[in-house]
Amino acid sequence: MVMADGRSKLAVVLLSGGVDSATTLAIAADAGMRCHAISFDYGQRHRFELAAARRIAEAMGVAEHRIVKLDLSAEAGFGRSALTDDIAVPRGRAGGGIPATYVPARNTIFLSVALGYAEVIGSFDIFIGVNAVDYSGYPDCRPAFISAFEETANLATAAAVEGKGRYTIHAPLIEMTKGQIIRTGLALGVDYSLTHSCYDPSPEGLACGVCDSCRIRLAGFAEAGAEDPGEYYSS
Amino acid sequence: MVMADGRSKLAVVLLSGGVDSATTLAIAADAGMRCHAISFDYGQRHRFELAAARRIAEAMGVAEHRIVKLDLSAEAGFGRSALTDDIAVPRGRAGGGIPATYVPARNTIFLSVALGYAEVIGSFDIFIGVNAVDYSGYPDCRPAFISAFEETANLATAAAVEGKGRYTIHAPLIEMTKGQIIRTGLALGVDYSLTHSCYDPSPEGLACGVCDSCRIRLAGFAEAGAEDPGEYYSS
Repeated sequence: MVMADGRSKLAVVLLSGGVDSATTLAIAADAGMRCHAISFDYGQRHRFELAAARRIAEAMGVAEHRIVKLDLSAEAGFGRSALTDDIAVPRGRAGGGIPATYVPARNTIFLSVALGYAEVIGSFDIFIGVNAVDYSGYPDCRPAFISAFEETANLATAAAVEGKGRYTIHAPLIEMTKGQIIRTGLALGVDYSLTHSCYDPSPEGLACGVCDSCRIRLAGFAEAGAEDPGEYYSS
Repeated sequence: MVMADGRSKLAVVLLSGGVDSATTLAIAADAGMRCHAISFDYGQRHRFELAAARRIAEAMGVAEHRIVKLDLSAEAGFGRSALTDDIAVPRGRAGGGIPATYVPARNTIFLSVALGYAEVIGSFDIFIGVNAVDYSGYPDCRPAFISAFEETANLATAAAVEGKGRYTIHAPLIEMTKGQIIRTGLALGVDYSLTHSCYDPSPEGLACGVCDSCRIRLAGFAEAGAEDPGEYYSS
């Protein structure tokens, strides 16, 4: 996306290192945005996610990749999630309720920091790979939440209030199935071997193939009619 | 505030270490809330603020005081504020526009983290000492911002979506003058000698007396007809 003065529009893209955020980054880049990626080192149980985010950011040639440290672990007074605390990761969830992998207010926190970063670099476009289909249980992955946050962002910031622009929270995957997400990414050249999805990897970082995140990923590749290039230690 | 089962309601109180947040903590405690204070180590130029927050939390007997590290400095890709970057602090601001001490998206970020903390401890009441009178230039100190954030919070979180409660963002000072704030705090027994307000303190932590924050504080004590117990190196 090129502005009247010939410069590319700047985007801030939340990059976790999984399939969805890698696809979101590809969508933003394909729209002609100059992408600044932001990842969070928030006390998640395993670090393969951040390594994947670094690989993806490098492979996709982002303008900048910031990793923000913010401890949301139980030791820091947070926790209460299978991703940040000593709680078993779910396998074969029946589909009802909010998953144990929900992290209290996580997307609100991540979007807020991304908003601050966007204001600093002069971007008005924030991309987040939330999806309301496969994980319908997460409250902060729903369109109503994204709209409310967008409204808050436009009241919160000097740049918006001074009329320099209007923030848009882009959630291009929000209504897609996992198969549609993967087909979209493959068409844009995303190398999914760089991504990490598993909640419960081996010490070497191989995926388990059986946690909810692996199962949704594997079913997504099957739906897309493609082979998952990820490495699994079981299946 | 005592609930039907006889327990006190829990509050999360944002505590910066200044006059406003100390007064806000006193108001929450006076309402019978069991207060959990949260402060941010965000790369602010001087650390006297955090020391003041610790003193106030201890003096007022909070249930818990969490200091969250989140680097919003220029080195971390943020900055762009006189409080976090190499920008002169304002003195004798004419009153128009947004002050140089505005930190991009700061209150959105702080409220988001407070929201996560509130959800973890089971609180639905978050107190913030924002004020729209003396610093009318800050976009994230206005009632419209607070309302929008509150709505976002009630869409973002499992606790709200599951119907366990409704989050309220309390901003009890938002329409008060500095004099009214100080009178309220004095009536509730706040020891303002523990607070720190100055943007530009001496190496020992004495206040300058001339930055905008000191001037507003001094005028507030004058308006309240009280003596400022703070220590100044100039005036």
